[in-house]
Amino acid sequence: MLYGISKLISPELIKVLMEMGHGDEIVLADGNFPAMSHGATVIRADGHGMVPLLEEILKLFPLDAYVEKPAALMQVVQGDTVETPIWDQFVSIFRQHTSLTEPFEHLDRFAFYERARKACAVVATGEGAQYANIILKKGVITE
Amino acid sequence: MLYGISKLISPELIKVLMEMGHGDEIVLADGNFPAMSHGATVIRADGHGMVPLLEEILKLFPLDAYVEKPAALMQVVQGDTVETPIWDQFVSIFRQHTSLTEPFEHLDRFAFYERARKACAVVATGEGAQYANIILKKGVITE
Amino acid sequence: MLYGISKLISPELIKVLMEMGHGDEIVLADGNFPAMSHGATVIRADGHGMVPLLEEILKLFPLDAYVEKPAALMQVVQGDTVETPIWDQFVSIFRQHTSLTEPFEHLDRFAFYERARKACAVVATGEGAQYANIILKKGVITE
Amino acid sequence: MLYGISKLISPELIKVLMEMGHGDEIVLADGNFPAMSHGATVIRADGHGMVPLLEEILKLFPLDAYVEKPAALMQVVQGDTVETPIWDQFVSIFRQHTSLTEPFEHLDRFAFYERARKACAVVATGEGAQYANIILKKGVITE
Amino acid sequence: MLYGISKLISPELIKVLMEMGHGDEIVLADGNFPAMSHGATVIRADGHGMVPLLEEILKLFPLDAYVEKPAALMQVVQGDTVETPIWDQFVSIFRQHTSLTEPFEHLDRFAFYERARKACAVVATGEGAQYANIILKKGVITE
Amino acid sequence: MLYGISKLISPELIKVLMEMGHGDEIVLADGNFPAMSHGATVIRADGHGMVPLLEEILKLFPLDAYVEKPAALMQVVQGDTVETPIWDQFVSIFRQHTSLTEPFEHLDRFAFYERARKACAVVATGEGAQYANIILKKGVITE
Amino acid sequence: MLYGISKLISPELIKVLMEMGHGDEIVLADGNFPAMSHGATVIRADGHGMVPLLEEILKLFPLDAYVEKPAALMQVVQGDTVETPIWDQFVSIFRQHTSLTEPFEHLDRFAFYERARKACAVVATGEGAQYANIILKKGVITE
Amino acid sequence: MLYGISKLISPELIKVLMEMGHGDEIVLADGNFPAMSHGATVIRADGHGMVPLLEEILKLFPLDAYVEKPAALMQVVQGDTVETPIWDQFVSIFRQHTSLTEPFEHLDRFAFYERARKACAVVATGEGAQYANIILKKGVITE
Amino acid sequence: MLYGISKLISPELIKVLMEMGHGDEIVLADGNFPAMSHGATVIRADGHGMVPLLEEILKLFPLDAYVEKPAALMQVVQGDTVETPIWDQFVSIFRQHTSLTEPFEHLDRFAFYERARKACAVVATGEGAQYANIILKKGVITE
Amino acid sequence: MLYGISKLISPELIKVLMEMGHGDEIVLADGNFPAMSHGATVIRADGHGMVPLLEEILKLFPLDAYVEKPAALMQVVQGDTVETPIWDQFVSIFRQHTSLTEPFEHLDRFAFYERARKACAVVATGEGAQYANIILKKGVITE
Repeated sequence: MLYGISKLISPELIKVLMEMGHGDEIVLADGNFPAMSHGATVIRADGHGMVPLLEEILKLFPLDAYVEKPAALMQVVQGDTVETPIWDQFVSIFRQHTSLTEPFEHLDRFAFYERARKACAVVATGEGAQYANIILKKGVITE
Repeated sequence: MLYGISKLISPELIKVLMEMGHGDEIVLADGNFPAMSHGATVIRADGHGMVPLLEEILKLFPLDAYVEKPAALMQVVQGDTVETPIWDQFVSIFRQHTSLTEPFEHLDRFAFYERARKACAVVATGEGAQYANIILKKGVITE
Repeated sequence: MLYGISKLISPELIKVLMEMGHGDEIVLADGNFPAMSHGATVIRADGHGMVPLLEEILKLFPLDAYVEKPAALMQVVQGDTVETPIWDQFVSIFRQHTSLTEPFEHLDRFAFYERARKACAVVATGEGAQYANIILKKGVITE
Repeated sequence: MLYGISKLISPELIKVLMEMGHGDEIVLADGNFPAMSHGATVIRADGHGMVPLLEEILKLFPLDAYVEKPAALMQVVQGDTVETPIWDQFVSIFRQHTSLTEPFEHLDRFAFYERARKACAVVATGEGAQYANIILKKGVITE
Repeated sequence: MLYGISKLISPELIKVLMEMGHGDEIVLADGNFPAMSHGATVIRADGHGMVPLLEEILKLFPLDAYVEKPAALMQVVQGDTVETPIWDQFVSIFRQHTSLTEPFEHLDRFAFYERARKACAVVATGEGAQYANIILKKGVITE
Repeated sequence: MLYGISKLISPELIKVLMEMGHGDEIVLADGNFPAMSHGATVIRADGHGMVPLLEEILKLFPLDAYVEKPAALMQVVQGDTVETPIWDQFVSIFRQHTSLTEPFEHLDRFAFYERARKACAVVATGEGAQYANIILKKGVITE
Repeated sequence: MLYGISKLISPELIKVLMEMGHGDEIVLADGNFPAMSHGATVIRADGHGMVPLLEEILKLFPLDAYVEKPAALMQVVQGDTVETPIWDQFVSIFRQHTSLTEPFEHLDRFAFYERARKACAVVATGEGAQYANIILKKGVITE
Repeated sequence: MLYGISKLISPELIKVLMEMGHGDEIVLADGNFPAMSHGATVIRADGHGMVPLLEEILKLFPLDAYVEKPAALMQVVQGDTVETPIWDQFVSIFRQHTSLTEPFEHLDRFAFYERARKACAVVATGEGAQYANIILKKGVITE
Repeated sequence: MLYGISKLISPELIKVLMEMGHGDEIVLADGNFPAMSHGATVIRADGHGMVPLLEEILKLFPLDAYVEKPAALMQVVQGDTVETPIWDQFVSIFRQHTSLTEPFEHLDRFAFYERARKACAVVATGEGAQYANIILKKGVITE
Repeated sequence: MLYGISKLISPELIKVLMEMGHGDEIVLADGNFPAMSHGATVIRADGHGMVPLLEEILKLFPLDAYVEKPAALMQVVQGDTVETPIWDQFVSIFRQHTSLTEPFEHLDRFAFYERARKACAVVATGEGAQYANIILKKGVITE
């Protein structure tokens, strides 16, 4: 533990977040995401939900201002009737921590997987909600 | 050993099964399957038959409901006269543990090999029956 | 995720818990415990409290019936005025999951460290309470 | 699989058995044995009982004729009332595969652990019986 | 050393031979074969000739009955006048240990290299004869 | 780079600082310190002076309140006439960031080396001043 | 530390600089550069600015005289209004240490990333200025 | 050191030379060759010139008689006015140790690099002369 | 293969023999020697007898002239009636390759094991004769 | 290669020399020194003599002024009649590069070995002269 760093953020995760640069991406994945097969580096965050983790990470770096949508969600698969109420929480967290109101690009499931493969890391949470995965694109930290 | 986990499941295997997510596949391979050359990760289960192992694994996670056939068998090679009575046992186990009556896609030998290469793991059993290999595709665990 | 295994238990942790045998010990450590320097194997459980984790682990194996006290706490250092209300919760969890009413040996801080060094693993939680470390000694699983 | 080698013996196990020489020891451990903390090398044989495994291993090499007792069992701990009927099966297997009628040295639990630490490997079976651990000392193979 | 396993077969080699399955290939290479650059796994067998090694390996598994020629030799390069009397010994060993009279496919040098790259292992012998390399394709072991 | 973490602190260093617990020690070493031979883990901070680094680290965690002197300096070797003006800067930084006025234990050179060997890490700075090494003992972070 | 080698240059960096040959490239990257995802080898130089580091490295080897522009900068992305005053400092350092007046090729952001991926190493500095990345191509050292 | 092996040949180098087979290539590289980026395996021979090393290596194996030119040099780049007097020494060594009078294929710089990438090893000498790189193709050792 | 190096000597063995210096020891072990548990480094030489291997190794370096007995044998264990005719062959090889007539120190079995543990390597041959182990102490190679 | 660093010094060696601090030792060993068994880290310098290497290393750092004899030689073993003319060259190099006239402590052979085991590295040269080993103790680099 250190002053000023949330206990939700593991030492391994803070290290990766620091090492990431402009344009690098990280995936926050729900408990059903196939992280093992799609993450070059997998950081376990078993038992944690997406909402508090997302909140802590958005405090640590700005999102990429060089693209229109610096975050991405996985679209509901055609024919699937599941609801995604957690998205409203995501939007509300983004509004609180960034100046973005429509930050999300909506990616088809397999397009999302492809982006995940190229990300710096996949954080495997225990989030039980479905379609609760987010890709974050890190922005420039200016002095 | 732990309460509630079958002794047939090794610590290494339970770890992989837990890490797998929606859509990830695992191969349960018979004793003649070329696991060494086709498995990114090989988990040895020497001396065990397919039937009890399959039964235990089907208790641990649902199969993928997003595809029509969440399991696959290797077709008998053309010209081969061997019988596959173990398939009846497989079907009966699936009926008992899932609501699926026709769960199996039948793959040509080399198509099966290709799928195996991309699976999360190949479990190398000592099953003596031929054509006794199964690919399982993990489903979504909802709360 | 798997049926029947709590989301609080990471794949790495379940693997170690399974591999442990009779008499093997595991340390559940609070956020201030020097796990890095005292754990042969450290399993991170950042952001989690001791109470739910302890509860889940006690469901997985019996404690050692060959010793009088199959669990250990770290004694409050002489002169330290901190209170340890979390111990009452520990006792209540033990009563619920085991038949033990006085399960705890109380070890001097440095004696606790010595035992920790020899344990199979130290689970580094984010528990904020002080003196909230427990050593658990695994018992025999009979059929 | 190979001709002439039992399917119970894993590739990793056969390799270690071959590499062992005169006087080297291997531990066949039951499911409660603390293999993780007492084995320099641990070979998993989850789900297998001791009896068939012992039988197969005794076919592969002679026991050490330079010591009086080339095998060892763990004594029942004082005060423990558990019975050890599996020992009769062990004796019967030894009589069948060796010329030894009293092959076993009986070691105190912690003395057994010490010998295990120095053994070439600990084979972690899933044997459910208690006190079902054996140390085997390999003999000389003459031409 | 173990009963029933030839001293010519190293522990590392027996392990690979056991792990190989139906259709997997192994290369027995003469002393001039570029094993280092063409073998995913190289097993050294320095100082040994091909004839006794081939003889021992053919005792351990059947060749693949699903292909016409389950073994392959390297053709003499055009213009090379070297004789290959060792092939006659190979044929005689195959006749003794298998029911095959014409087991060999004859591969062009560079086609042979390509097959070797995909084999499970290359066994680097010290055989002094030229063109004394063989690829063996493992068959199905039935009960 | 992340918001709120000094650029002087490398990702590797922040990870170690987070993993350290109560009583764990870290050595900030000057450019002449034999870090290679005395550090279980060495973290390079080439080209940086001690003063800014010390200042940043003291912002991240409290020092150990369970010992009288939670920091240590290396005494000037007998007969050495070098001055240590950097110590005054160290004292002033401690006063600013902690409530300690006399935080330093003064260790004989070889006693300092022994403590360094047991520390979690040695940070190898490029500080040119002599006797500019400090051992910091981490305290308890309370909520 | 050694005589004649700047304290800014870490042991790991000097080793890589020595191992590089004619035509090999190294990237000096600012604090926002995505080094983690674009560097085959990443050498951390946290907390250091580009100007002094560049100056020290140009003293150690000549730039490649076989290409027109032995160094490269990342062009300002279209639409970005940020100024790049640090480039003037770069030019002035090059003039001082080389005979080159126009050493820089200007690469589009993504072309720069591609070159970086193939470089021998990326040195991750803490430079706060934007577009402060340089690729250096090593020349021939003649006697 | 061993009888009969030149002190110029390091243990690592002799091992690779032995493991190489017919048609395998090794690059002897001058001090400016980009070995780090073009060698799958790099063997350092710092401080040594090409001439004595080449002489020792040619004593250890024959060159490949199945190709017209079993050795290759890097052509002088167009426009470069440097002289290559060391080539005369190379020719003279080849004449002394082989029956070849025109052993060298002349490869364009980038073609040379491509061949180097596929070689078994690149030996990084300290040769100061330019264009002093040689590729050697090993021949068949007959009895 | 290389000119002048016996095919019995593997690349790994020649490397170790070269790296050994004055006073370093190597064990040539028979097929029953417990190499796995007594060798810091084990070099397999399966299927080879001691006599030809010893002969080849004695050609490569002198024995240590600074001790009285630069080689050692394992004494026959008291009560063992086995004969050791292979020792006569060893003596005859030593006479042929060295000026020593009584080179052997005779070590008690467990003293031999202790020396083996400290040796640079144990070469595990397939020698079937008993008590056919030798320790060789390397001497000084002068110019 | 870099400006200002001798070609005799390998990249690996310069890295270790830089990482060494005050009081750390390095062994320059002749070709007969048992580096393999006495060096925690061994750096090969095959084919090089001691004299030029010593000369280059003494240019890179001062010797330790806190001890009387910052360098050590191995005494001639009692009864050995070999001469050590190379020592005169060593003395002359020390006089040229340091202000020391009697820098050498003379250590008994086995005491020298003990010191070597604790050194940061052993540089294994090809020096043919006997008793040509030196231990150097690095001093403080002041600004």
